[in-house]
Amino acid sequence: MNYIIGIDVGTTATKGVLYNELGKAVSTVSKGYPLIQEKIGQAEEDPKLIFDAVQEIIYKLAQQTTGKILAISWSSQMHSLIGLDQNNELLTNSITWADNCAKSIVEDAKNKGLAKKVYRKTGMPMHPMAPIYKLLWLKDQKSELFKQTQKWIGIKEYLIFRLTGKMITDTTMAAGTGMLNLNTLTWDQELLNIVGIKQAQLPEIAQPIEVISPIKIEYVQKLGINPDTKIILGASDGYLSTIGVNAIDSDHFALNIGTSGAVRTIVDQPKIDENASYFCYPIDQQHYLLGGPVNNGGIVFNWARQTLFDANETPQDFLDVAQTAPAGSRNLIFLPYLGGERAPIWNADARGSFIGLTRMHQKPEMARAVIEGIIFNLYDAASNLIKNTKKPVTINATGGFLKSDFVRQLCANVFNVPIVTMKEEQSGTLAAMFLARQALGLSKNMDEIEQFAQFAQTDKVYFPNQKEAAIYQSIFPLYCEIRDALAASYKNFNK
Amino acid sequence: MNYIIGIDVGTTATKGVLYNELGKAVSTVSKGYPLIQEKIGQAEEDPKLIFDAVQEIIYKLAQQTTGKILAISWSSQMHSLIGLDQNNELLTNSITWADNCAKSIVEDAKNKGLAKKVYRKTGMPMHPMAPIYKLLWLKDQKSELFKQTQKWIGIKEYLIFRLTGKMITDTTMAAGTGMLNLNTLTWDQELLNIVGIKQAQLPEIAQPIEVISPIKIEYVQKLGINPDTKIILGASDGYLSTIGVNAIDSDHFALNIGTSGAVRTIVDQPKIDENASYFCYPIDQQHYLLGGPVNNGGIVFNWARQTLFDANETPQDFLDVAQTAPAGSRNLIFLPYLGGERAPIWNADARGSFIGLTRMHQKPEMARAVIEGIIFNLYDAASNLIKNTKKPVTINATGGFLKSDFVRQLCANVFNVPIVTMKEEQSGTLAAMFLARQALGLSKNMDEIEQFAQFAQTDKVYFPNQKEAAIYQSIFPLYCEIRDALAASYKNFNK
Ligand SMILES: Nc1ncnc2c1ncn2[C@@H]1O[C@H](COP(=O)(O)OP(=O)(O)OP(=O)(O)O)[C@@H](O)[C@H]1O
Ligand SMILES: Nc1ncnc2c1ncn2[C@@H]1O[C@H](COP(=O)(O)OP(=O)(O)O)[C@@H](O)[C@H]1O
Repeated sequence: MNYIIGIDVGTTATKGVLYNELGKAVSTVSKGYPLIQEKIGQAEEDPKLIFDAVQEIIYKLAQQTTGKILAISWSSQMHSLIGLDQNNELLTNSITWADNCAKSIVEDAKNKGLAKKVYRKTGMPMHPMAPIYKLLWLKDQKSELFKQTQKWIGIKEYLIFRLTGKMITDTTMAAGTGMLNLNTLTWDQELLNIVGIKQAQLPEIAQPIEVISPIKIEYVQKLGINPDTKIILGASDGYLSTIGVNAIDSDHFALNIGTSGAVRTIVDQPKIDENASYFCYPIDQQHYLLGGPVNNGGIVFNWARQTLFDANETPQDFLDVAQTAPAGSRNLIFLPYLGGERAPIWNADARGSFIGLTRMHQKPEMARAVIEGIIFNLYDAASNLIKNTKKPVTINATGGFLKSDFVRQLCANVFNVPIVTMKEEQSGTLAAMFLARQALGLSKNMDEIEQFAQFAQTDKVYFPNQKEAAIYQSIFPLYCEIRDALAASYKNFNK
Repeated sequence: MNYIIGIDVGTTATKGVLYNELGKAVSTVSKGYPLIQEKIGQAEEDPKLIFDAVQEIIYKLAQQTTGKILAISWSSQMHSLIGLDQNNELLTNSITWADNCAKSIVEDAKNKGLAKKVYRKTGMPMHPMAPIYKLLWLKDQKSELFKQTQKWIGIKEYLIFRLTGKMITDTTMAAGTGMLNLNTLTWDQELLNIVGIKQAQLPEIAQPIEVISPIKIEYVQKLGINPDTKIILGASDGYLSTIGVNAIDSDHFALNIGTSGAVRTIVDQPKIDENASYFCYPIDQQHYLLGGPVNNGGIVFNWARQTLFDANETPQDFLDVAQTAPAGSRNLIFLPYLGGERAPIWNADARGSFIGLTRMHQKPEMARAVIEGIIFNLYDAASNLIKNTKKPVTINATGGFLKSDFVRQLCANVFNVPIVTMKEEQSGTLAAMFLARQALGLSKNMDEIEQFAQFAQTDKVYFPNQKEAAIYQSIFPLYCEIRDALAASYKNFNK
C-alpha cells in the first residue's frame, strides 16, 4: 500500500497524519512548541524548533509503515513572517498571526487610507496580523535588520526551503501577506514600493498542487523516506479546512467553532466588502476564499462556565441550565468580544457585554445568552459574506463548541440554514492529503474530495426550527444595534 | 407624659410610631394592604383599606399609654390620585406613584412640549407618576368618570378628610401633583386649564405644620383618643425623610439606598435642571426640595446575589467575594437599570448591563461591579444636583444596602464626600412628629431636629480614601459614556 503524509503546521503544535491510498488516516503524530511572548503583544516562534518538530513527525510516521510514502503535503498557519540574510540564515523568529507589533502601524494605515488600499488590492483585512504591516513596522522600528534582510518568507516556505532548497509559496499563503494582487495573482508592485522591498525578496508563487521535489538527500536519510517522495506545496489552513469539510463552492459555508472560530466560503470571483469585514484571498483565477476569523468561540464558553458557574461544573452542566431558558434568552443580549475581536467587527479593544438585564433574567438566561451571543457573532460574520454572495444551502460545521445537539440545533436556528456536522475534525491534513492526490493524478476534480467519506461524512443534519429561527431573526437587528452603539467606546476601557 | 403619633403612609404598609415628649419612639405598629395590579402597569390601592389600617394603628398606639396624645402627624407617599363624587364618595381607587397608566400621555406630553412646561412651572419630572398626567389620561380614556368627579385628592388628603372633614393638602404633597406653581406656591391656572379642571376641585393648600382639628367625634370615640388631640397636616415622605436625617440645607444630601433609592437636598431657591433630571418641589417660599428617586437599589443587589451566586448565599457572602476584586472592578461597568429607571435617566424601558468583560473578569469583578454600578447610579443622580447647587459637606445615608462598612466606604469613595450613616431608619415618622412639635410650639427652629439625637445620631463617619476616590473619578466618565451610548436602544428591547 502507498501512503501520503498530510502535515498541519499550527500555532501551538504541528500535526502529521499518515493517510493510506484510500484516504484513511492510519496514524497521527503531533508535536508542540512554545510561543515566545516576552513582551506585551509579542507572539513569535522559533522556526528551527518547528522544523525539528516536522522532522520528528515525518520520521515517526514513516516508521509506521513499510509501504511507500508517495508524498508529503502541507497545511499551514497563515500570516507568519521570517527574515533571512544573504546566506538564507534566520535573522528573525517567525512572527506569527497572533503578534501585535504592527498595531499602531495599522491605525496609521487606516487613517492614511493605506489600509483600505491594501484591502481593495489584496483582500487582506486591516489587521496587524498581515505581514505587510509587520514589514512596515520593522522598517520603522528595526531599520538595520530590515535593510540586512534579503528574503521575507513565512513558516511553510521556511520548512519547504529547509527540505528542498526551494523558496516558494502558494497563492493561498501569499494572499495572507497583504501583498498579493487579487486580480493578477502576483506580488503587487505598488504595495512592494510602499513597503520598500523588491519582488526578488519574496518567494516565487505557485499553485497548491505544485510538486517541489526532490527532498535534499540528507533529509531522505534522516527521515527514513524514499528519495522520490514528493513534496507538494500545499496551502493555508484556512483554505484547506474549508475544502476539507467539503465546502468547495458558494453553496456551502464552512463553520468552525473551537477555541476561536471562523466562517468561510469559496466563490468564483474576487468579492471584497465595502466595510472590509471579511478577507478575500485568491486561490486561483477561478476561486477565492472569503471568510472571517473570529477570536471568541469556545474560549468564551469556558470563561462563562467558570464565571457564572463554578470551575468544577462541566460544559454539560452549563448546557443543561442554559436549555431551561427560552430561545432568545428573554431579549438578553451577550456580545462575546472578551478577547477583542477580528471578524466581524475588527476591533482589538472590543470587550464583552451582557445588555438588557431585568429581574426576569436569571442564571439560565445569562448562560443561554452566552451561547447565543457566540453564535450571533459568527452569524454576524457570515451575514457579511451572505450580503456579498448568497445564502448557503448548508453550513458544514466543526469544532468543540458544536459538540452537543443543543448547540448545533441552536446554530441551525440562528443561521436559519441546515447545519451539517462533521465527524472528522482534521480537515486541514485531510485536504492537504487530497492536494497531494491531485498533484499525483490520483484524484482529478475538487469535488472528489467528497468521496473521502469517512472524513467529510455527515454525522447528522440539523434543520432550522422555524419558530425559533423567527425569534432569532427578530432579535438579530437588536444585537447589531447594540454592537454598533458600543463600538466607539471600547478604546476608552483600555486607557 | 404627653405623646405624639407619627404616621407614615407607605405604598405597601402604613406605620405608626408613638413618640414621647422627649422624641423617643416608645411603640411602633404597622399594617399592610395589597397593591391592586390586575392589568399590566396598574398599581392602585383601596383608600378604605388604608383608612382602616390607619384607624387600627392609631387605636393600638393609643392603647399603649395612659398619657395624653397631643397630636397625630403625617408622612405620606406622594403622587397618588383619588376621585370623589359630589357626596365626597370614592369614584376611584388611589392610583399610586407606581401606576403606569399615563405612560403614553407622558410620551405625548414630551413630544408636544407640555412635559417641559410642567417641569419648568412645577418642578415635576416628566413621569407618569404625576397626577397631572393621570388626570389627562382619565380625561382621555375615562371621560365619563372624569366629568363626574368633583374632587381630586391624594391619599393623605383622603385620610385627613375622613378624620376631620377638611379637604386640605400641604405644599410638599401638592408639589408632587405637577400642578403647583413653583413660584407662587398656588395651583397653576394655565396647567389646570390644560387638564380641564377647576381650582375648586383640588384641596386647599397649607403649610405642613398647619393644625387641622378637631377630629370628628365618631373617631375620637372609635380610636380611643382625646377630643383635643390635634391633627397636624404633615408632609410628603420625600421631604420628611430628608429633614429626618438632619439634611436641612444644601450642605447636606440625604442618601437612602434600600430596595430602591433616593438622593435629596434642600435649597433656598427654586432650581430646575435643564435636562429635567431631578425634581424641584417647593416646601415654602424659602425652601425647595431637590432630588432624584432611583428605582434600582438593594433590589438589584438581591437579584445579583441570586443570579451570580445561589439564592442560599447571604448578602455577606456576596460582599466577601466582591471585596476580593480591586476598586473599579478592572474597568467592568455595570448599569443597574434592571427595573427601568427614574432619576437620573428617566427611562422606563431602561435595562441593566455588564459592559467591558474580558477573561480577566471573574465572579469577584462581576459582584463588585454590581455594587459599584448601584452606587454610580446614585452618584449620577447626585451629580445633577451638585451641578446646580454645590458639593455637600456630608452625605447623610440610610437604607439596608448601606449596612456594611465595605459598601459605606465604597460609597464615600465614589461620592468623594464623607458619608455620615444613621442609626435610625424611621426618619419619616420622626420628622412628622417634629412637625407636630413645631405646630404645638414645643420646638422652634428646624435645626432643633438635630437634638433628637437618638434618631439622627451618627453611627459612624466614612471619609473618602483618596486613592480609591481617584479611581472612581476616572471611571465615572466612562460609565456616563456607556450610559448615553445605550440610552436610545432600550425601547427596542420591549418590542
Ligand atoms: N448586607 C447587605 N448589603 C447590601 N445590601 C443589603 C444587605 N442586606 C440587605 N440588603 C439590601 O437592602 C435592601 C433592603 O433595604 P431596606 O430595608 O432599607 O429597604 P426598604 O425599606 O424595603 O426599601 P425602600 O426604602 O426603598 O422602600 C434589600 O434590597 C437588600 O438587597
Ligand atoms: N460540550 C461542549 N459544549 C460547548 N463547547 C464545548 C464543549 N466542550 C468543550 N467546548 C469548548 O470547545 C472548545 C475547544 O474546541 P476544539 O475544537 O477542541 O478547539 P481548538 O481545536 O480550536 O483548540 C473549548 O474552548 C471549550 O470551551
